[in-house]
Amino acid sequence: MSIRIVLVETTHPGNIGATARAMKTMGLAELVLVAPKFFPHADATAMAAGADDILSTARVCESLDEAIADCILVIATSARSRSLPWPMLTPKESAERLVMDAKEKNVALVFGQEKAGLTNEQLARCHYHTQIPSVASFSSLNLAASVQVMAYEMRLAQLQDAPKSEVIEEEPLAIQEDMQGFYLHLQETLLAMEFLRSANRDSMMLRIRRLFNRAQMDKTEVNILRGILSAVQRTMGYNK
Amino acid sequence: MSIRIVLVETTHPGNIGATARAMKTMGLAELVLVAPKFFPHADATAMAAGADDILSTARVCESLDEAIADCILVIATSARSRSLPWPMLTPKESAERLVMDAKEKNVALVFGQEKAGLTNEQLARCHYHTQIPSVASFSSLNLAASVQVMAYEMRLAQLQDAPKSEVIEEEPLAIQEDMQGFYLHLQETLLAMEFLRSANRDSMMLRIRRLFNRAQMDKTEVNILRGILSAVQRTMGYNK
Repeated sequence: MSIRIVLVETTHPGNIGATARAMKTMGLAELVLVAPKFFPHADATAMAAGADDILSTARVCESLDEAIADCILVIATSARSRSLPWPMLTPKESAERLVMDAKEKNVALVFGQEKAGLTNEQLARCHYHTQIPSVASFSSLNLAASVQVMAYEMRLAQLQDAPKSEVIEEEPLAIQEDMQGFYLHLQETLLAMEFLRSANRDSMMLRIRRLFNRAQMDKTEVNILRGILSAVQRTMGYNK
Repeated sequence: MSIRIVLVETTHPGNIGATARAMKTMGLAELVLVAPKFFPHADATAMAAGADDILSTARVCESLDEAIADCILVIATSARSRSLPWPMLTPKESAERLVMDAKEKNVALVFGQEKAGLTNEQLARCHYHTQIPSVASFSSLNLAASVQVMAYEMRLAQLQDAPKSEVIEEEPLAIQEDMQGFYLHLQETLLAMEFLRSANRDSMMLRIRRLFNRAQMDKTEVNILRGILSAVQRTMGYNK
Protein backbone atom coordinates (compact mmCIF):
# COMPACT_ATOMS: atom_id res chain seq x y z
CA MET A 1 0.00 0.00 0.00
CA SER A 2 1.45 3.37 -0.95
CA ILE A 3 -0.76 6.10 0.37
CA ARG A 4 0.91 9.42 1.00
CA ILE A 5 0.22 11.20 4.26
CA VAL A 6 0.70 14.96 3.85
CA LEU A 7 1.01 17.20 6.90
CA VAL A 8 0.69 20.89 6.13
CA GLU A 9 2.51 23.53 8.19
CA THR A 10 2.74 21.40 11.31
CA THR A 11 3.60 23.51 14.34
CA HIS A 12 4.68 20.88 16.88
CA PRO A 13 7.41 18.47 15.77
CA GLY A 14 6.17 15.97 18.35
CA ASN A 15 3.06 15.59 16.24
CA ILE A 16 5.18 14.71 13.23
CA GLY A 17 6.85 11.92 15.20
CA ALA A 18 3.54 10.68 16.61
CA THR A 19 2.15 10.70 13.07
CA ALA A 20 5.05 8.54 11.86
CA ARG A 21 4.34 6.07 14.65
CA ALA A 22 0.61 6.04 13.90
CA MET A 23 1.34 5.44 10.22
CA LYS A 24 3.78 2.63 10.83
CA THR A 25 1.41 0.69 13.10
CA MET A 26 -1.07 0.60 10.22
CA GLY A 27 1.41 -0.22 7.46
CA LEU A 28 1.74 3.25 5.92
CA ALA A 29 5.21 4.50 4.98
CA GLU A 30 5.13 7.64 2.85
CA LEU A 31 5.16 10.92 4.76
CA VAL A 32 5.38 14.35 3.12
CA LEU A 33 5.73 17.52 5.18
CA VAL A 34 4.68 20.85 3.71
CA ALA A 35 6.57 23.75 5.32
CA PRO A 36 6.88 22.22 8.80
CA LYS A 37 7.79 24.76 11.48
CA PHE A 38 10.54 22.49 12.87
CA PHE A 39 11.94 19.40 11.17
CA PRO A 40 14.02 17.41 11.84
CA HIS A 41 13.61 17.84 15.58
CA ALA A 42 14.36 15.82 18.72
CA ASP A 43 10.67 15.84 19.71
CA ALA A 44 9.74 14.24 16.40
CA THR A 45 12.28 11.47 16.90
CA ALA A 46 11.18 10.90 20.49
CA MET A 47 7.50 10.61 19.60
CA ALA A 48 8.18 8.36 16.62
CA ALA A 49 9.08 5.65 19.16
CA GLY A 50 10.77 3.44 16.61
CA ALA A 51 9.19 4.70 13.41
CA ASP A 52 12.42 6.55 12.60
CA ASP A 53 12.55 5.10 9.11
CA ILE A 54 9.41 7.03 8.21
CA LEU A 55 10.94 10.26 9.50
CA SER A 56 14.23 9.69 7.71
CA THR A 57 12.50 9.10 4.36
CA ALA A 58 9.96 11.91 4.84
CA ARG A 59 10.01 14.46 2.04
CA VAL A 60 9.79 18.17 2.84
CA CYS A 61 7.99 20.42 0.33
CA GLU A 62 7.37 24.12 0.19
CA SER A 63 3.77 23.97 -0.97
CA LEU A 64 0.81 21.64 -0.97
CA ASP A 65 0.80 21.80 -4.77
CA GLU A 66 4.30 20.35 -4.83
CA ALA A 67 3.34 17.61 -2.36
CA ILE A 68 0.39 16.34 -4.40
CA ALA A 69 1.50 17.19 -7.95
CA ASP A 70 1.60 13.54 -9.09
CA CYS A 71 -1.57 12.35 -7.33
CA ILE A 72 -4.78 11.21 -9.00
CA LEU A 73 -6.78 11.35 -5.78
CA VAL A 74 -6.35 13.81 -2.94
CA ILE A 75 -8.56 13.81 0.14
CA ALA A 76 -8.45 16.54 2.77
CA THR A 77 -9.31 16.13 6.41
CA SER A 78 -11.32 19.03 7.67
CA ALA A 79 -12.72 19.71 11.11
CA ARG A 80 -14.58 22.87 10.28
CA SER A 81 -17.75 23.26 8.32
CA ARG A 82 -17.10 25.54 5.39
CA SER A 83 -19.14 28.20 3.75
CA LEU A 84 -18.61 26.37 0.48
CA PRO A 85 -19.96 22.83 0.62
CA TRP A 86 -17.58 20.27 -0.90
CA PRO A 87 -18.06 16.59 -1.71
CA MET A 88 -17.71 14.82 1.62
CA LEU A 89 -16.75 11.23 2.26
CA THR A 90 -16.85 9.46 5.59
CA PRO A 91 -13.47 8.30 6.93
CA LYS A 92 -14.39 4.75 5.90
CA GLU A 93 -15.38 5.78 2.37
CA SER A 94 -12.21 7.85 2.09
CA ALA A 95 -10.10 4.92 3.19
CA GLU A 96 -11.74 2.61 0.68
CA ARG A 97 -11.21 5.07 -2.16
CA LEU A 98 -7.58 5.69 -1.22
CA VAL A 99 -6.76 1.99 -0.86
CA MET A 100 -8.43 1.17 -4.17
CA ASP A 101 -6.78 3.94 -6.17
CA ALA A 102 -3.38 3.46 -4.52
CA LYS A 103 -2.98 0.14 -6.29
CA GLU A 104 -2.17 1.90 -9.53
CA LYS A 105 -1.28 5.47 -8.81
CA ASN A 106 -0.27 8.02 -6.22
CA VAL A 107 -2.92 9.16 -3.78
CA ALA A 108 -2.73 11.45 -0.78
CA LEU A 109 -4.52 12.21 2.44
CA VAL A 110 -3.90 15.76 3.66
CA PHE A 111 -3.94 17.10 7.22
CA GLY A 112 -3.80 20.82 8.00
CA GLN A 113 -2.08 22.88 10.62
CA GLU A 114 -2.96 21.87 14.21
CA LYS A 115 -5.11 24.84 15.15
CA ALA A 116 -6.09 26.44 11.86
CA GLY A 117 -6.56 23.33 9.72
CA LEU A 118 -6.38 23.75 5.97
CA THR A 119 -7.12 27.04 4.24
CA ASN A 120 -9.93 27.28 1.71
CA GLU A 121 -7.23 27.56 -0.96
CA GLN A 122 -5.71 24.30 0.19
CA LEU A 123 -9.06 22.57 0.58
CA ALA A 124 -9.92 23.52 -3.00
CA ARG A 125 -6.91 21.51 -4.20
CA CYS A 126 -8.55 18.28 -3.04
CA HIS A 127 -11.11 16.01 -4.66
CA TYR A 128 -12.97 15.21 -1.48
CA HIS A 129 -13.09 16.29 2.11
CA THR A 130 -13.50 13.98 5.03
CA GLN A 131 -14.28 14.59 8.65
CA ILE A 132 -13.87 12.38 11.68
CA PRO A 133 -17.28 12.59 13.37
CA SER A 134 -16.32 14.27 16.62
CA VAL A 135 -18.84 15.91 18.93
CA ALA A 136 -19.72 19.49 18.04
CA SER A 137 -18.85 20.89 21.44
CA PHE A 138 -15.25 19.58 21.41
CA SER A 139 -14.33 18.73 17.89
CA SER A 140 -10.57 19.15 17.75
CA LEU A 141 -8.71 15.86 17.63
CA ASN A 142 -4.98 15.88 18.12
CA LEU A 143 -3.27 15.80 14.73
CA ALA A 144 -1.56 12.43 15.21
CA ALA A 145 -4.76 11.00 16.70
CA SER A 146 -6.57 11.99 13.51
CA VAL A 147 -3.87 10.31 11.46
CA GLN A 148 -4.23 7.21 13.64
CA VAL A 149 -7.98 7.01 13.06
CA MET A 150 -7.66 7.49 9.30
CA ALA A 151 -4.74 5.05 9.09
CA TYR A 152 -6.81 2.52 11.04
CA GLU A 153 -9.65 2.87 8.53
CA MET A 154 -7.19 2.37 5.68
CA ARG A 155 -5.82 -0.72 7.38
CA LEU A 156 -9.36 -2.10 7.69
CA ALA A 157 -10.03 -1.28 4.04
CA GLN A 158 -6.86 -3.02 2.99
CA LEU A 159 -7.60 -6.10 5.07
CA GLN A 160 -11.11 -6.34 3.65
CA ASP A 161 -9.98 -5.70 0.12
CA ALA A 162 -10.25 -8.87 -1.92
CA PRO A 163 -8.95 -9.08 -5.47
CA LYS A 164 -11.54 -7.59 -7.80
CA SER A 165 -12.80 -9.88 -10.52
CA GLU A 166 -13.77 -7.29 -13.06
CA VAL A 167 -11.15 -5.01 -14.52
CA ILE A 168 -12.40 -2.01 -16.44
CA GLU A 169 -10.06 -0.64 -19.02
CA GLU A 170 -9.64 3.02 -18.24
CA GLU A 171 -7.65 5.94 -19.47
CA PRO A 172 -4.97 7.31 -17.18
CA LEU A 173 -6.40 9.77 -14.68
CA ALA A 174 -5.24 13.36 -14.55
CA ILE A 175 -2.67 14.15 -11.91
CA GLN A 176 -2.82 17.33 -9.87
CA GLU A 177 -0.29 19.00 -12.14
CA ASP A 178 -2.64 18.50 -15.10
CA MET A 179 -5.50 19.93 -13.09
CA GLN A 180 -3.55 23.02 -12.02
CA GLY A 181 -2.61 23.64 -15.66
CA PHE A 182 -6.26 23.34 -16.65
CA TYR A 183 -7.46 25.70 -13.91
CA LEU A 184 -4.85 28.31 -14.82
CA HIS A 185 -5.79 28.08 -18.49
CA LEU A 186 -9.47 28.35 -17.61
CA GLN A 187 -8.97 31.33 -15.31
CA GLU A 188 -6.89 33.14 -17.92
CA THR A 189 -9.56 32.57 -20.54
CA LEU A 190 -12.45 33.58 -18.30
CA LEU A 191 -10.63 36.76 -17.27
CA ALA A 192 -9.96 37.65 -20.92
CA MET A 193 -13.66 37.16 -21.68
CA GLU A 194 -14.52 39.29 -18.65
CA PHE A 195 -16.62 36.45 -17.31
CA LEU A 196 -14.37 36.61 -14.27
CA ARG A 197 -13.72 39.92 -12.62
CA SER A 198 -11.63 40.63 -9.57
CA ALA A 199 -14.79 40.81 -7.43
CA ASN A 200 -16.01 37.29 -8.21
CA ARG A 201 -12.82 35.58 -9.34
CA ASP A 202 -11.93 33.60 -6.24
CA SER A 203 -15.40 32.42 -5.30
CA MET A 204 -16.19 31.48 -8.89
CA MET A 205 -12.94 29.57 -9.38
CA LEU A 206 -13.58 27.74 -6.14
CA ARG A 207 -16.99 26.58 -7.36
CA ILE A 208 -15.51 25.52 -10.67
CA ARG A 209 -12.72 23.59 -8.97
CA ARG A 210 -15.23 21.80 -6.82
CA LEU A 211 -17.18 20.74 -9.88
CA PHE A 212 -14.23 19.45 -11.90
CA ASN A 213 -12.41 17.89 -8.95
CA ARG A 214 -15.50 15.91 -8.20
CA ALA A 215 -15.49 14.46 -11.71
CA GLN A 216 -11.94 13.06 -11.23
CA MET A 217 -11.08 13.60 -14.88
CA ASP A 218 -8.78 11.49 -17.00
CA LYS A 219 -5.97 13.02 -19.04
CA THR A 220 -7.93 12.92 -22.31
CA GLU A 221 -10.81 14.82 -20.77
CA VAL A 222 -8.45 17.51 -19.50
CA ASN A 223 -6.98 17.76 -23.00
CA ILE A 224 -10.43 18.13 -24.54
CA LEU A 225 -11.36 20.94 -22.18
CA ARG A 226 -8.04 22.68 -22.75
CA GLY A 227 -8.63 22.30 -26.48
CA ILE A 228 -11.93 24.11 -26.05
CA LEU A 229 -10.20 26.87 -24.08
CA SER A 230 -7.59 27.27 -26.81
CA ALA A 231 -10.38 27.49 -29.39
CA VAL A 232 -12.04 30.22 -27.33
CA GLN A 233 -8.76 32.09 -27.13
CA ARG A 234 -8.35 31.87 -30.91
CA THR A 235 -11.76 33.45 -31.43
CA MET A 236 -10.51 36.32 -29.29
CA GLY A 237 -7.39 36.70 -31.39
CA TYR A 238 -4.98 34.94 -29.04
CA ASN A 239 -2.01 33.26 -30.59
CA LYS A 240 -0.65 30.58 -28.38
CA MET B 1 -23.39 7.61 26.52
CA SER B 2 -21.70 6.46 29.70
CA ILE B 3 -18.87 4.15 28.84
CA ARG B 4 -16.03 4.03 31.29
CA ILE B 5 -12.48 4.21 30.01
CA VAL B 6 -10.06 2.50 32.41
CA LEU B 7 -6.33 3.11 32.15
CA VAL B 8 -4.24 0.65 34.16
CA GLU B 9 -0.86 1.65 35.66
CA THR B 10 -0.20 4.37 33.13
CA THR B 11 3.47 5.44 33.18
CA HIS B 12 3.35 8.75 31.29
CA PRO B 13 0.92 11.36 32.59
CA GLY B 14 0.90 12.98 29.14
CA ASN B 15 -0.90 9.89 27.90
CA ILE B 16 -3.60 10.39 30.52
CA GLY B 17 -4.18 13.93 29.28
CA ALA B 18 -4.15 12.86 25.63
CA THR B 19 -6.64 10.12 26.54
CA ALA B 20 -8.96 12.69 28.11
CA ARG B 21 -8.79 14.77 24.94
CA ALA B 22 -9.44 11.73 22.72
CA MET B 23 -12.43 10.75 24.86
CA LYS B 24 -13.95 14.19 24.87
CA THR B 25 -13.79 14.55 21.07
CA MET B 26 -15.91 11.42 20.81
CA GLY B 27 -18.38 12.26 23.57
CA LEU B 28 -16.97 10.04 26.31
CA ALA B 29 -16.66 11.47 29.81
CA GLU B 30 -15.91 8.82 32.42
CA LEU B 31 -12.23 8.14 33.06
CA VAL B 32 -10.93 5.81 35.76
CA LEU B 33 -7.21 5.50 36.50
CA VAL B 34 -5.90 2.36 38.17
CA ALA B 35 -2.66 3.08 40.08
CA PRO B 36 -1.28 5.75 37.72
CA LYS B 37 2.41 6.46 38.21
CA PHE B 38 1.82 10.23 38.27
CA PHE B 39 -1.55 11.92 38.63
CA PRO B 40 -2.46 14.74 38.72
CA HIS B 41 0.45 16.06 36.69
CA ALA B 42 1.22 19.13 34.56
CA ASP B 43 1.84 16.94 31.49
CA ALA B 44 -1.62 15.44 31.81
CA THR B 45 -3.21 18.89 31.94
CA ALA B 46 -1.14 20.15 29.00
CA MET B 47 -2.03 17.20 26.79
CA ALA B 48 -5.72 17.35 27.72
CA ALA B 49 -5.87 20.58 25.69
CA GLY B 50 -9.19 21.65 27.11
CA ALA B 51 -10.55 18.32 28.30
CA ASP B 52 -9.74 19.32 31.88
CA ASP B 53 -13.21 18.45 33.09
CA ILE B 54 -12.52 14.80 32.32
CA LEU B 55 -9.28 14.92 34.29
CA SER B 56 -10.87 16.70 37.24
CA THR B 57 -13.66 14.15 37.49
CA ALA B 58 -11.39 11.16 36.86
CA ARG B 59 -11.53 8.57 39.61
CA VAL B 60 -8.32 6.96 40.87
CA CYS B 61 -8.51 3.33 42.03
CA GLU B 62 -5.97 0.98 43.50
CA SER B 63 -6.96 -2.07 41.51
CA LEU B 64 -8.69 -3.05 38.30
CA ASP B 65 -11.25 -4.98 40.34
CA GLU B 66 -12.25 -1.79 42.09
CA ALA B 67 -12.47 0.11 38.79
CA ILE B 68 -14.85 -2.33 37.16
CA ALA B 69 -16.75 -3.65 40.16
CA ASP B 70 -20.15 -2.30 39.04
CA CYS B 71 -19.85 -3.16 35.34
CA ILE B 72 -21.94 -5.67 33.42
CA LEU B 73 -19.58 -5.69 30.44
CA VAL B 74 -15.81 -5.24 30.49
CA ILE B 75 -13.70 -5.38 27.35
CA ALA B 76 -9.89 -5.39 27.42
CA THR B 77 -7.65 -4.02 24.70
CA SER B 78 -4.69 -6.22 24.06
CA ALA B 79 -1.86 -5.85 21.59
CA ARG B 80 -0.20 -9.16 22.29
CA SER B 81 -1.41 -12.61 21.44
CA ARG B 82 -1.84 -14.53 24.65
CA SER B 83 -1.15 -18.06 25.62
CA LEU B 84 -4.66 -18.22 26.97
CA PRO B 85 -7.20 -17.95 24.12
CA TRP B 86 -10.05 -15.62 24.97
CA PRO B 87 -13.22 -14.52 23.20
CA MET B 88 -12.12 -11.81 20.77
CA LEU B 89 -14.19 -9.02 19.31
CA THR B 90 -13.12 -6.60 16.61
CA PRO B 91 -12.96 -2.94 17.67
CA LYS B 92 -16.23 -2.34 15.82
CA GLU B 93 -17.97 -5.27 17.50
CA SER B 94 -16.64 -4.15 20.87
CA ALA B 95 -17.91 -0.62 20.31
CA GLU B 96 -21.35 -1.88 19.32
CA ARG B 97 -21.59 -4.10 22.41
CA LEU B 98 -20.42 -1.33 24.72
CA VAL B 99 -22.79 1.28 23.26
CA MET B 100 -25.72 -1.13 23.42
CA ASP B 101 -25.13 -2.27 26.98
CA ALA B 102 -24.27 1.23 28.23
CA LYS B 103 -27.87 2.28 27.79
CA GLU B 104 -28.85 0.39 30.91
CA LYS B 105 -25.80 -0.40 32.92
CA ASN B 106 -22.15 0.37 33.53
CA VAL B 107 -19.66 -0.90 31.01
CA ALA B 108 -15.90 -0.46 30.72
CA LEU B 109 -13.13 -0.57 28.17
CA VAL B 110 -9.73 -1.28 29.72
CA PHE B 111 -6.27 -0.25 28.50
CA GLY B 112 -3.06 -1.64 29.99
CA GLN B 113 0.29 -0.13 30.86
CA GLU B 114 2.06 1.47 27.87
CA LYS B 115 4.79 -1.11 27.36
CA ALA B 116 3.61 -4.21 29.18
CA GLY B 117 -0.10 -4.04 28.44
CA LEU B 118 -2.46 -5.92 30.72
CA THR B 119 -1.30 -8.91 32.74
CA ASN B 120 -2.96 -12.29 32.25
CA GLU B 121 -4.57 -11.76 35.66
CA GLN B 122 -6.08 -8.48 34.50
CA LEU B 123 -7.12 -9.84 31.10
CA ALA B 124 -8.96 -12.64 32.85
CA ARG B 125 -11.16 -10.04 34.57
CA CYS B 126 -12.67 -9.08 31.25
CA HIS B 127 -15.52 -10.55 29.22
CA TYR B 128 -13.93 -10.02 25.87
CA HIS B 129 -10.63 -8.94 24.42
CA THR B 130 -10.22 -6.69 21.46
CA GLN B 131 -7.27 -5.80 19.32
CA ILE B 132 -6.70 -2.93 16.92
CA PRO B 133 -5.43 -4.63 13.74
CA SER B 134 -1.94 -3.18 13.54
CA VAL B 135 0.80 -4.67 11.36
CA ALA B 136 2.72 -7.52 12.99
CA SER B 137 6.12 -5.89 12.51
CA PHE B 138 5.20 -2.70 14.38
CA SER B 139 2.16 -3.34 16.48
CA SER B 140 2.44 -0.91 19.35
CA LEU B 141 0.04 1.98 19.12
CA ASN B 142 0.46 4.89 21.46
CA LEU B 143 -1.93 4.51 24.40
CA ALA B 144 -3.98 7.63 23.67
CA ALA B 145 -4.00 6.77 19.96
CA SER B 146 -5.57 3.40 20.87
CA VAL B 147 -8.14 5.18 22.99
CA GLN B 148 -8.84 7.53 20.07
CA VAL B 149 -9.48 4.64 17.67
CA MET B 150 -11.75 2.80 20.08
CA ALA B 151 -13.58 6.01 21.04
CA TYR B 152 -14.06 6.72 17.32
CA GLU B 153 -15.63 3.28 16.85
CA MET B 154 -17.93 3.93 19.80
CA ARG B 155 -18.90 7.27 18.33
CA LEU B 156 -19.76 5.56 15.03
CA ALA B 157 -21.76 2.92 16.87
CA GLN B 158 -23.65 5.58 18.76
CA LEU B 159 -24.35 7.64 15.64
CA GLN B 160 -25.67 4.58 13.82
CA ASP B 161 -27.80 3.77 16.79
CA ALA B 162 -29.38 7.20 17.06
CA PRO B 163 -32.05 8.62 14.81
CA LYS B 164 -30.53 10.78 12.11
CA SER B 165 -30.66 14.41 13.09
CA GLU B 166 -28.23 16.18 10.84
CA VAL B 167 -29.42 17.23 7.42
CA ILE B 168 -26.84 18.56 5.01
CA GLU B 169 -28.03 21.59 3.15
CA GLU B 170 -27.40 21.05 -0.54
CA GLU B 171 -28.29 22.83 -3.69
CA PRO B 172 -30.92 21.16 -5.87
CA LEU B 173 -29.39 18.86 -8.44
CA ALA B 174 -29.83 19.52 -12.12
CA ILE B 175 -32.61 17.55 -13.75
CA GLN B 176 -32.21 16.00 -17.18
CA GLU B 177 -33.94 18.97 -18.80
CA ASP B 178 -31.24 21.29 -17.41
CA MET B 179 -28.55 18.96 -18.68
CA GLN B 180 -30.03 18.74 -22.18
CA GLY B 181 -30.21 22.53 -22.33
CA PHE B 182 -26.58 22.73 -21.28
CA TYR B 183 -25.41 20.15 -23.83
CA LEU B 184 -27.28 21.87 -26.67
CA HIS B 185 -25.85 25.23 -25.67
CA LEU B 186 -22.36 23.69 -25.48
CA GLN B 187 -22.66 21.96 -28.85
CA GLU B 188 -23.90 25.13 -30.53
CA THR B 189 -20.99 27.11 -29.10
CA LEU B 190 -18.38 24.51 -29.98
CA LEU B 191 -19.68 24.27 -33.53
CA ALA B 192 -19.56 28.07 -33.91
CA MET B 193 -15.95 28.05 -32.70
CA GLU B 194 -15.21 25.23 -35.12
CA PHE B 195 -13.96 23.13 -32.24
CA LEU B 196 -16.60 20.63 -33.26
CA ARG B 197 -16.86 19.58 -36.86
CA SER B 198 -19.26 17.12 -38.36
CA ALA B 199 -16.55 14.44 -38.37
CA ASN B 200 -15.89 14.49 -34.65
CA ARG B 201 -19.09 15.96 -33.30
CA ASP B 202 -20.88 12.88 -32.03
CA SER B 203 -17.92 11.13 -30.48
CA MET B 204 -16.71 14.34 -28.85
CA MET B 205 -20.13 15.23 -27.43
CA LEU B 206 -20.38 11.70 -26.05
CA ARG B 207 -17.12 12.07 -24.18
CA ILE B 208 -18.18 15.46 -22.85
CA ARG B 209 -21.52 14.08 -21.69
CA ARG B 210 -19.81 11.25 -19.91
CA LEU B 211 -17.60 13.72 -18.06
CA PHE B 212 -20.35 16.11 -16.96
CA ASN B 213 -22.89 13.41 -16.18
CA ARG B 214 -20.37 11.80 -13.90
CA ALA B 215 -20.07 15.03 -11.93
CA GLN B 216 -23.82 15.04 -11.17
CA MET B 217 -24.08 18.81 -11.30
CA ASP B 218 -26.41 20.98 -9.32
CA LYS B 219 -28.50 23.70 -10.93
CA THR B 220 -26.13 26.50 -9.94
CA GLU B 221 -23.20 24.74 -11.56
CA VAL B 222 -25.14 24.30 -14.79
CA ASN B 223 -25.98 28.01 -14.70
CA ILE B 224 -22.31 28.91 -14.21
CA LEU B 225 -21.25 26.81 -17.20
CA ARG B 226 -24.02 28.25 -19.36
CA GLY B 227 -22.92 31.71 -18.26
CA ILE B 228 -19.43 30.88 -19.56
CA LEU B 229 -20.90 29.67 -22.85
CA SER B 230 -22.90 32.89 -23.23
CA ALA B 231 -19.73 34.90 -22.55
CA VAL B 232 -17.93 32.92 -25.28
CA GLN B 233 -20.78 33.63 -27.67
CA ARG B 234 -20.60 37.35 -26.90
CA THR B 235 -16.90 37.41 -27.78
CA MET B 236 -17.91 35.95 -31.16
CA GLY B 237 -20.49 38.66 -31.71
CA TYR B 238 -23.57 36.57 -30.83
CA ASN B 239 -26.54 38.41 -29.45
CA LYS B 240 -28.81 36.22 -27.49
